Amino acid sequence: MKARVTVTLKNGVLDPQGKAIEGALGSLGFDGVGSVRQGKVFDVELTAGSEGEAQDKLKSMCEQLLANTVIEDYAITLVE
Amino acid sequence: MKARVTVTLKNGVLDPQGKAIEGALGSLGFDGVGSVRQGKVFDVELTAGSEGEAQDKLKSMCEQLLANTVIEDYAITLVE
Repeated sequence: MKARVTVTLKNGVLDPQGKAIEGALGSLGFDGVGSVRQGKVFDVELTAGSEGEAQDKLKSMCEQLLANTVIEDYAITLVE
Repeated sequence: MKARVTVTLKNGVLDPQGKAIEGALGSLGFDGVGSVRQGKVFDVELTAGSEGEAQDKLKSMCEQLLANTVIEDYAITLVE
Protein backbone atom coordinates (compact mmCIF):
# COMPACT_ATOMS: atom_id res chain seq x y z
CA MET A 1 0.00 0.00 0.00
CA LYS A 2 1.30 3.46 -0.83
CA ALA A 3 0.54 6.53 1.21
CA ARG A 4 1.48 10.17 1.17
CA VAL A 5 1.86 12.00 4.47
CA THR A 6 1.94 15.79 4.28
CA VAL A 7 3.26 17.68 7.28
CA THR A 8 2.69 21.44 7.43
CA LEU A 9 3.30 24.10 10.06
CA LYS A 10 0.24 25.11 12.05
CA ASN A 11 -1.23 28.54 11.43
CA GLY A 12 0.50 31.16 13.53
CA VAL A 13 3.81 29.30 13.70
CA LEU A 14 6.59 31.40 12.19
CA ASP A 15 8.13 29.98 9.02
CA PRO A 16 11.48 31.68 8.33
CA GLN A 17 12.23 29.28 5.48
CA GLY A 18 8.97 30.22 3.77
CA LYS A 19 9.75 33.92 4.29
CA ALA A 20 13.16 33.45 2.68
CA ILE A 21 11.55 31.79 -0.35
CA GLU A 22 9.05 34.67 -0.56
CA GLY A 23 11.96 37.11 -0.60
CA ALA A 24 13.85 35.10 -3.20
CA LEU A 25 10.80 34.92 -5.49
CA GLY A 26 10.48 38.70 -5.18
CA SER A 27 14.15 39.17 -6.12
CA LEU A 28 13.64 36.93 -9.16
CA GLY A 29 10.91 39.29 -10.35
CA PHE A 30 7.82 37.31 -9.45
CA ASP A 31 5.23 39.80 -8.26
CA GLY A 32 1.87 39.09 -6.67
CA VAL A 33 3.27 36.40 -4.39
CA GLY A 34 1.44 36.66 -1.08
CA SER A 35 2.80 34.15 1.35
CA VAL A 36 4.85 30.99 1.04
CA ARG A 37 4.90 28.28 3.69
CA GLN A 38 7.07 25.22 3.46
CA GLY A 39 6.21 21.75 4.66
CA LYS A 40 7.35 18.18 4.22
CA VAL A 41 5.95 15.24 2.37
CA PHE A 42 6.67 11.56 3.00
CA ASP A 43 5.88 8.85 0.49
CA VAL A 44 5.57 5.67 2.51
CA GLU A 45 5.18 2.13 1.20
CA LEU A 46 3.79 -0.22 3.79
CA THR A 47 2.02 -3.54 4.08
CA ALA A 48 -1.27 -3.59 5.96
CA GLY A 49 -4.28 -5.89 5.97
CA SER A 50 -6.78 -3.14 5.28
CA GLU A 51 -7.03 0.58 4.56
CA GLY A 52 -8.13 1.18 8.13
CA GLU A 53 -5.11 -0.62 9.52
CA ALA A 54 -2.82 1.36 7.23
CA GLN A 55 -4.44 4.64 8.37
CA ASP A 56 -3.96 3.67 12.02
CA LYS A 57 -0.32 2.71 11.47
CA LEU A 58 0.40 5.94 9.60
CA LYS A 59 -1.32 8.04 12.24
CA SER A 60 0.81 6.43 14.89
CA MET A 61 3.98 7.03 12.79
CA CYS A 62 3.06 10.71 12.48
CA GLU A 63 2.44 11.11 16.19
CA GLN A 64 5.67 9.37 17.13
CA LEU A 65 8.14 10.39 14.46
CA LEU A 66 7.06 12.17 11.29
CA ALA A 67 5.40 15.26 12.74
CA ASN A 68 5.99 17.47 15.74
CA THR A 69 2.34 17.80 16.73
CA VAL A 70 3.04 20.82 18.93
CA ILE A 71 3.74 23.00 15.90
CA GLU A 72 2.79 20.84 12.91
CA ASP A 73 -0.35 19.36 11.38
CA TYR A 74 -0.34 16.21 9.29
CA ALA A 75 -2.59 14.78 6.60
CA ILE A 76 -2.59 11.17 5.42
CA THR A 77 -3.68 10.16 1.91
CA LEU A 78 -3.70 6.55 0.77
CA VAL A 79 -2.57 6.53 -2.84
CA GLU A 80 -3.24 2.87 -3.72
CA MET B 1 -5.27 32.12 -5.42
CA LYS B 2 -3.77 29.33 -3.34
CA ALA B 3 -1.61 26.59 -4.73
CA ARG B 4 0.31 23.65 -3.40
CA VAL B 5 3.59 22.69 -5.04
CA THR B 6 4.95 19.24 -4.21
CA VAL B 7 8.60 18.55 -4.96
CA THR B 8 9.80 14.95 -4.82
CA LEU B 9 13.04 13.22 -5.71
CA LYS B 10 13.08 11.45 -9.07
CA ASN B 11 13.09 7.68 -9.10
CA GLY B 12 16.58 6.33 -8.82
CA VAL B 13 17.93 9.30 -6.90
CA LEU B 14 19.28 8.18 -3.52
CA ASP B 15 17.36 9.52 -0.52
CA PRO B 16 19.48 9.14 2.63
CA GLN B 17 16.96 11.11 4.69
CA GLY B 18 14.19 8.73 3.67
CA LYS B 19 16.41 5.75 4.50
CA ALA B 20 17.08 7.21 7.96
CA ILE B 21 13.34 7.58 8.56
CA GLU B 22 12.80 3.99 7.41
CA GLY B 23 15.40 2.85 9.94
CA ALA B 24 13.89 4.96 12.70
CA LEU B 25 10.40 3.57 12.04
CA GLY B 26 11.86 0.06 12.25
CA SER B 27 13.51 0.88 15.59
CA LEU B 28 10.19 2.19 16.88
CA GLY B 29 8.65 -1.21 16.16
CA PHE B 30 6.72 -0.42 12.99
CA ASP B 31 7.02 -3.45 10.75
CA GLY B 32 5.91 -3.84 7.16
CA VAL B 33 7.35 -0.47 6.16
CA GLY B 34 8.76 -0.83 2.65
CA SER B 35 10.34 2.39 1.55
CA VAL B 36 10.12 5.99 2.68
CA ARG B 37 11.01 8.93 0.48
CA GLN B 38 10.95 12.49 1.66
CA GLY B 39 9.99 15.52 -0.37
CA LYS B 40 8.98 19.13 0.12
CA VAL B 41 5.71 20.95 -0.13
CA PHE B 42 5.17 24.67 -0.67
CA ASP B 43 1.88 26.41 -0.01
CA VAL B 44 1.94 29.52 -2.14
CA GLU B 45 -0.57 32.35 -2.15
CA LEU B 46 -0.42 34.42 -5.30
CA THR B 47 -2.51 36.81 -7.32
CA ALA B 48 -3.12 35.93 -10.95
CA GLY B 49 -5.73 36.86 -13.53
CA SER B 50 -6.64 33.30 -14.38
CA GLU B 51 -5.90 29.70 -13.43
CA GLY B 52 -3.74 29.34 -16.52
CA GLU B 53 -1.68 32.38 -15.62
CA ALA B 54 -1.22 31.05 -12.08
CA GLN B 55 -0.09 27.66 -13.45
CA ASP B 56 2.43 29.35 -15.74
CA LYS B 57 3.80 31.53 -12.93
CA LEU B 58 4.11 28.55 -10.59
CA LYS B 59 5.79 26.42 -13.25
CA SER B 60 8.33 29.14 -13.80
CA MET B 61 8.91 29.45 -10.00
CA CYS B 62 9.53 25.70 -9.82
CA GLU B 63 12.00 25.73 -12.70
CA GLN B 64 13.89 28.71 -11.32
CA LEU B 65 13.83 28.25 -7.57
CA LEU B 66 11.58 25.70 -5.90
CA ALA B 67 12.82 22.50 -7.53
CA ASN B 68 16.16 21.24 -8.76
CA THR B 69 14.86 19.70 -11.97
CA VAL B 70 18.00 17.62 -12.45
CA ILE B 71 17.07 15.38 -9.53
CA GLU B 72 13.55 16.48 -8.56
CA ASP B 73 10.05 16.35 -10.03
CA TYR B 74 7.37 18.87 -9.15
CA ALA B 75 3.59 18.85 -9.19
CA ILE B 76 1.36 21.92 -9.02
CA THR B 77 -2.17 21.83 -7.60
CA LEU B 78 -4.39 24.89 -7.46
CA VAL B 79 -6.31 24.73 -4.21
CA GLU B 80 -8.73 27.61 -4.72
